[in-house]
Amino acid sequence: MKKRRCIIGQSGGPTVAINSSLAGVIDGAIASSMYERIYGMRNGIEGLLDLQIVNLSERFTTLDLVERLRKTPAMYLGSCRYKLDTNDTETLSKIFSILENFQIDDFFYIGGNDSMDTILKLSDYGKQIDSPIRFIGIPKTIDNDLVGTDHTPGFGSAAKYIATTMLEVMYDCAIYNKPSITIVEIMGRNAGWLTAAAALAKTEAMEGVDLIYLPELAFDVDQFLNDVDYILQTKKKQVLVAVSEGIKDKKGNYIQDGEISGQVDAFGHISRSGAGKALEKIAANHFQCKVRSVEINVLQRSCMHCASETDLKEAFLIGRSAVGKALEGNNGIMLTYERVPGNSYQVRIGTVDVHESANKERLVPREWINKEGNHVNGTMINYLTPLIQGEVMLEYKGGVPSYLPLM
Amino acid sequence: MKKRRCIIGQSGGPTVAINSSLAGVIDGAIASSMYERIYGMRNGIEGLLDLQIVNLSERFTTLDLVERLRKTPAMYLGSCRYKLDTNDTETLSKIFSILENFQIDDFFYIGGNDSMDTILKLSDYGKQIDSPIRFIGIPKTIDNDLVGTDHTPGFGSAAKYIATTMLEVMYDCAIYNKPSITIVEIMGRNAGWLTAAAALAKTEAMEGVDLIYLPELAFDVDQFLNDVDYILQTKKKQVLVAVSEGIKDKKGNYIQDGEISGQVDAFGHISRSGAGKALEKIAANHFQCKVRSVEINVLQRSCMHCASETDLKEAFLIGRSAVGKALEGNNGIMLTYERVPGNSYQVRIGTVDVHESANKERLVPREWINKEGNHVNGTMINYLTPLIQGEVMLEYKGGVPSYLPLM
Repeated sequence: MKKRRCIIGQSGGPTVAINSSLAGVIDGAIASSMYERIYGMRNGIEGLLDLQIVNLSERFTTLDLVERLRKTPAMYLGSCRYKLDTNDTETLSKIFSILENFQIDDFFYIGGNDSMDTILKLSDYGKQIDSPIRFIGIPKTIDNDLVGTDHTPGFGSAAKYIATTMLEVMYDCAIYNKPSITIVEIMGRNAGWLTAAAALAKTEAMEGVDLIYLPELAFDVDQFLNDVDYILQTKKKQVLVAVSEGIKDKKGNYIQDGEISGQVDAFGHISRSGAGKALEKIAANHFQCKVRSVEINVLQRSCMHCASETDLKEAFLIGRSAVGKALEGNNGIMLTYERVPGNSYQVRIGTVDVHESANKERLVPREWINKEGNHVNGTMINYLTPLIQGEVMLEYKGGVPSYLPLM
Repeated sequence: MKKRRCIIGQSGGPTVAINSSLAGVIDGAIASSMYERIYGMRNGIEGLLDLQIVNLSERFTTLDLVERLRKTPAMYLGSCRYKLDTNDTETLSKIFSILENFQIDDFFYIGGNDSMDTILKLSDYGKQIDSPIRFIGIPKTIDNDLVGTDHTPGFGSAAKYIATTMLEVMYDCAIYNKPSITIVEIMGRNAGWLTAAAALAKTEAMEGVDLIYLPELAFDVDQFLNDVDYILQTKKKQVLVAVSEGIKDKKGNYIQDGEISGQVDAFGHISRSGAGKALEKIAANHFQCKVRSVEINVLQRSCMHCASETDLKEAFLIGRSAVGKALEGNNGIMLTYERVPGNSYQVRIGTVDVHESANKERLVPREWINKEGNHVNGTMINYLTPLIQGEVMLEYKGGVPSYLPLM
């Protein structure tokens, strides 16, 4: 039987689990014995168009290397933000001719919303031209906003980092006997999942974050000031607030500091920042106490030193399973996590037609936010808690983690 | 023989090692069998004046609790920023009468520059009034700026966190095939030690941070733009810059974004921030590429999840040794680390007269900075490297570290 060839790409923003999924695809392809060659494209579809294609079969010859890949943050193959245009048949046909030249049978793309758009457009165009190439999407994003999957690879680790960091900020806040307000800004353009993870910073020792504001609900400045005031008056001296970078007022305007940067990426996403700084100024004008804001920024994306073992394991598994799904003949699908109903947390791998997932956003349901709109409730806690379980033992050298070099 | 009584306080900003030193004092006092009671003052000298005094002998009855204390960030006893005034004999004599009421023989204070000022004033006043109470200072600060000690407890862990985080930011930067400039602002009012630790983010896989600017040298905006340009032109596409919060131009003005906050603490320190944001704007106006800034902020102070084992061990040892120094009859001293000359890293505990340390700052020597003033050299690397060695295994519960509750 003729052996197959596959190619793998990574795209979008970094997470700590995307290389785990890459390791899973490599491991699955090797284990299947169905592939004579595994290619990687550097910098996603952009690199493919530039023939930046590498032979991964030659590089990953030992289990040790695959294991180190699994524990390396960001994208081993590099990333891109490149939007395919359905009408640009010149580019589409160029991609297919490159894939045909390399005799590619299966095309794996690991990424978020925008990467699933790439899978959608390539599989649609492939069907149009009767190409036998199978296009398989493997999800990843710290935003957890992909439709059709219980959660996304990379989210659990970012959530664990947020929970751990918020807990430590809480210790930082608690030491002075004076009132203070600390506002922490967390990533999430439209979806509040990662900000919600601040609620996991609750232990027997610490009662947790006081206020959590997600972008799904209109943000009301007066209500915010009332909420903070209520806590200062009735509960405790040091108020800790978690706020999504994407909070908007009821007219849909972002709450932010200074002018809008106006930078728009290839997918039309505007780069935002400053919700935390804006609330810091508002609170400082209103309250007679110390007010500060912290923007966790990119630290929450590549924080392998605080990864969730559950996340990395599942990300490997979903990558491995993608190979089986390709071999079964699927095309134009995204792999998914399905949470098995029951008391103990269990996940099985499923699939969804990429048309049902690409270019959609899964937001936090209103019922998972408390009535007052300033915290999350038990449903959210129960959903999030299993995703951050387990710690990943890293190899250290010279006091810092010994990650694999990126390509 | 009459048993002794001691009291311990913590003061200043949090570190991850200050509870390790507290655990060391408790452990040393118990082990010596010389003490019938160990007291703690809540919120430092401020709490002492309010009679916020707790019996630590009753609380720390098991080794397990002492061990958990060792691995809990920030201040178990709470902190304060309270400046004693030599002329305010009313307050000074009130402190002594409280200490006498509690029959205190030995007074331990764990803190930075300002806390050593407290030890200085109390021991001076005590000598004046012929008090037999012994005042012992135990250093701590992430700034590493105390005079008389090779390094300070808490610095090694903050440095390890900075190195690890910078390494991960480097992975975050490296994924796109486009030029970019990332500026990371690191704490350090006048001393650049912690910013220098960014240089440790260098592995076989990653060539390290490109530019490092310390507050010890006058910052020249044109030189900065030239430095970045040189790297973009000759070396690599993604430039990573570490900059101290305290950089100043040659006239001594802070490089910062927006107006000075003007907030001044009890010790006259002005709260600063925005050097990173200021450089981001300057670079964005000059270069045609993506520019971003990250302020690590308080995350570098309470990051127990990324602590240096060397740091925590030494911090415990210096706390333990403080007890012996008190029992030997010392008064008005600060404990110190002395690095033993030789090829392998070894530290022994010494002491210094607190007059030689309080209200002074140890800055980075010019010879430890490279000739161009935009990085550190091998002497600095050799000095820093041993301090971040070893990882601390924490107990996790529910996915987050199980730290001891603060008092």
